Amino acid sequence: MKLFGHVEIQARVRIESNTVVYGPARIGLGSFIGPNVILGFPPKKELTESINQGRSLHDAPGRRQLIIGKGCVVRSGASVYSDVSIGEQVSFGHNVMVRENVRIGKETLIGTGVVVDGSCRIGERVSIQTGAYLCSNCTIEDSVFLGPHVVLTNDKYVKQKSTRLVGPTIRRGASIGANSLLMPSVEVGEGSVVGAQSLVLHNVPPRSIYAGIPAKKLKKVPADWRTSLLRS
Amino acid sequence: MKLFGHVEIQARVRIESNTVVYGPARIGLGSFIGPNVILGFPPKKELTESINQGRSLHDAPGRRQLIIGKGCVVRSGASVYSDVSIGEQVSFGHNVMVRENVRIGKETLIGTGVVVDGSCRIGERVSIQTGAYLCSNCTIEDSVFLGPHVVLTNDKYVKQKSTRLVGPTIRRGASIGANSLLMPSVEVGEGSVVGAQSLVLHNVPPRSIYAGIPAKKLKKVPADWRTSLLRS
Amino acid sequence: MKLFGHVEIQARVRIESNTVVYGPARIGLGSFIGPNVILGFPPKKELTESINQGRSLHDAPGRRQLIIGKGCVVRSGASVYSDVSIGEQVSFGHNVMVRENVRIGKETLIGTGVVVDGSCRIGERVSIQTGAYLCSNCTIEDSVFLGPHVVLTNDKYVKQKSTRLVGPTIRRGASIGANSLLMPSVEVGEGSVVGAQSLVLHNVPPRSIYAGIPAKKLKKVPADWRTSLLRS
Repeated sequence: MKLFGHVEIQARVRIESNTVVYGPARIGLGSFIGPNVILGFPPKKELTESINQGRSLHDAPGRRQLIIGKGCVVRSGASVYSDVSIGEQVSFGHNVMVRENVRIGKETLIGTGVVVDGSCRIGERVSIQTGAYLCSNCTIEDSVFLGPHVVLTNDKYVKQKSTRLVGPTIRRGASIGANSLLMPSVEVGEGSVVGAQSLVLHNVPPRSIYAGIPAKKLKKVPADWRTSLLRS
Repeated sequence: MKLFGHVEIQARVRIESNTVVYGPARIGLGSFIGPNVILGFPPKKELTESINQGRSLHDAPGRRQLIIGKGCVVRSGASVYSDVSIGEQVSFGHNVMVRENVRIGKETLIGTGVVVDGSCRIGERVSIQTGAYLCSNCTIEDSVFLGPHVVLTNDKYVKQKSTRLVGPTIRRGASIGANSLLMPSVEVGEGSVVGAQSLVLHNVPPRSIYAGIPAKKLKKVPADWRTSLLRS
Repeated sequence: MKLFGHVEIQARVRIESNTVVYGPARIGLGSFIGPNVILGFPPKKELTESINQGRSLHDAPGRRQLIIGKGCVVRSGASVYSDVSIGEQVSFGHNVMVRENVRIGKETLIGTGVVVDGSCRIGERVSIQTGAYLCSNCTIEDSVFLGPHVVLTNDKYVKQKSTRLVGPTIRRGASIGANSLLMPSVEVGEGSVVGAQSLVLHNVPPRSIYAGIPAKKLKKVPADWRTSLLRS
């Protein structure tokens, strides 16, 4: 374990072998940081400046803090940037990557191999399954489920033309099936479901089931699904 | 290299830098364990208990053994759990993750970035290509081929409703094309082929070629394909 | 940091914690190598021989050099093989894997979790987004854009029949949308665009937009897209 700069480690934290923390960082009460983890990695601009100026990554004038809440589990191979805030009881699988300016709510699960690009907002009790990719500027509300290998995108011109990068918004309690892809700025409504292997080109209204390439409406979400929870 | 607990290392084993082994584990004759590998990582329940009780991960009352057979190659960045049994001459690419209660038969290849969730059974001479994802409770028989980024799923209600998680079963000698997705509990028959980028909603009978979204039958597998091997 | 064999490190190079370099390797002026990186890993045949002969990986009779140009950034968790040549100002995300006999041109970006298999040629100013997979024997020309989770394939018989493995060729300035899959030996023409979640079975002519499963022509690329740059 190597700690550089100002790292506040609260009581009963455990940090395993070969882990590197670039401060400033705060690791909350009773959290577990697995082996071979990198915490507080600097964003691109700051990395470039420190390289060009011959400064160590350990010196960090103005670097923003990484905050890991209490009772979190970060498994092996994660790389988490500075300027990230992770709530209580959040659990990471292995080899997760989270870039700068990201907020993750409490009790959320981030699966193995998930990549969260910069400036995403992720709510509470969200479940993001293995290998999903969140482009920059996504909004994921509370209790959302993203299946394995879901891909969210933010550049409709695939670099052929300059455009503002806006990721999808997924509303409270919605579920996105495995391997599905959401186009830039699309919104999936509260409690809605997108089937596996779908391509979502347009907004999905609340409490609806969509599927296909492109995704079309199949039916309303049945009354006994967890959309009922959303009414409480 | 750090070894914790009871680790049996047989003759001519090589273990590279920064690798961590949590015992009990046995590493078979002549196997190679690359750098930055984690072996014997504890399952979630055991991890949570050891955190809550302030015990080290190195103490492991009742932890099940990780067994790596002879002549295996585990490349850099792998995380392999305890209670995993890996046969002889198995080869892993880089950054592989294998969870608890998994059995892998001899001479199988697990590609770079593959994730194998808990309680999977994988046969002999299987080839799992880069980035494939095996959900928990899958059965992969001998000589199966899974193309790159194949995704197997086990939750048809995408967390909207509670259900028993049952993964797909892929019978002997079948091949699944790249980026294809199999729905929960689907069975692909012996020697069958699923084309690339397909969505398999229903069972695929033996020796048939299916493709599309959803996958439909194209034709029988030609007689000169390796289904002929299955008859021997 | 551990350096084995002949490693030439030019001025102002920075190498972070837990990184392992198997020489021969040259790391160019001012390049940054992040933590937990593996450089110069041996190809399969050489690895097998060194294991069988009880030689260390550090001894390398006839091993080809890894060359990293000046001003490169290789972030945490990368595994880069020997016999790889990387041009100036190339930037890698996290957990990238690049196999042997690969050439990468200057100013190219290789995103987090990207896997580049052996014998690929990648041009200058290419952008390969998160989680894309390049099979062996691909050709990616200058200024190409590959979206997240794009998959390139080289085995049309999915191991059912022996065949020569030929990957796709993507011509100058083309863009491939996220999650799309290209079949073996397919060529995408100069300045063309493939939409997201597509399956490309056949060649795509220059300056055309294709999408769907299977991909079909939608229209010509509009005149104000960057194909205009290709004419200069």
